[in-house]
Amino acid sequence: MIKKISHIAIVVPNLEDALGFWVNTLGLPLSHVEHVPDQDVDVAFMPSGDSEIELLEPISAESGVARFLHKRGPGIHHICFEVDDIEQMLKRIKDAGVPLINEEPTIGTGGKKIAFVHPKGTGGVLVELYELTPEESARRLERLEDMRRRLREGRRIYAAGIRAFLTRLRPQSGFNTGNGSDSQN
Amino acid sequence: MIKKISHIAIVVPNLEDALGFWVNTLGLPLSHVEHVPDQDVDVAFMPSGDSEIELLEPISAESGVARFLHKRGPGIHHICFEVDDIEQMLKRIKDAGVPLINEEPTIGTGGKKIAFVHPKGTGGVLVELYELTPEESARRLERLEDMRRRLREGRRIYAAGIRAFLTRLRPQSGFNTGNGSDSQN
Repeated sequence: MIKKISHIAIVVPNLEDALGFWVNTLGLPLSHVEHVPDQDVDVAFMPSGDSEIELLEPISAESGVARFLHKRGPGIHHICFEVDDIEQMLKRIKDAGVPLINEEPTIGTGGKKIAFVHPKGTGGVLVELYELTPEESARRLERLEDMRRRLREGRRIYAAGIRAFLTRLRPQSGFNTGNGSDSQN
Repeated sequence: MIKKISHIAIVVPNLEDALGFWVNTLGLPLSHVEHVPDQDVDVAFMPSGDSEIELLEPISAESGVARFLHKRGPGIHHICFEVDDIEQMLKRIKDAGVPLINEEPTIGTGGKKIAFVHPKGTGGVLVELYELTPEESARRLERLEDMRRRLREGRRIYAAGIRAFLTRLRPQSGFNTGNGSDSQN
């Protein structure tokens, strides 16, 4: 069963520039950033109601997200639904003849299970399914720590907004990227 | 202030076929259908958490949605955020130098206010803002009645699923479009 829309993922060429619109202008809170090595992307999450907006910046040219950006330009990449039982949902989708990108869920850090449905079977929409585990918040903190390590070790240069986020513990509101607007207003 | 994601709109060539996936296969409930004359589309809403998936089928070749479908193919069309004060939000967006499609909100039936932000200023995402009024549920019922009238008068032929929806009072769950799956499972 689908519980809710977990997030809507948007591909951007530069996370920091994009946060200027979503956080500073629209006023969404930045709740989390992380580096996802499997997909070679840096991501930022902004909660809205009981869902989140997820921004994805590809940090290598070879990833699927980078190819999407090159081919289609920036914009919405996928919708993710949280489900209570991902195996049951995948069986149901397969039985209906809808093609899956992942016939079995991928097991991520903390036991989180994810799978993608092929856009060919959904009318052009890339649909992700997500079964959360109680370990998710611990996983997010761990990933955040990893991103901070990359910053400290100089392995990736982050601009003002993300650096400010990474050097604070748990910021819940916006920041100023120096583009003249301020989400604290 | 943004309250939540109101809906994610998906353009489809045929509403009935699309409901086969979203309602029958994924199991989302079909809560409402209506015809929107301003945009010349038939729409269907499926709640998920505190947001909705909205399917849009253009019913003339000239509408903006029809041109989107022709140019980009089926897929996600826009994200709509519910806001508490649309005029204030539009001012904030304009002050940040982000171009608006509607500088003033459009007033819809029931006093509902909507406006679109130009994708040029959002990183390729068409963003709709929506300020609800208490009259929205009455407005939806009125639109539903209008769609039923079109069905009775033979002005538009609907296939099995939507016809079943229109001839029942307030169905909350799925239906069978005859594609072999059944959302009642």
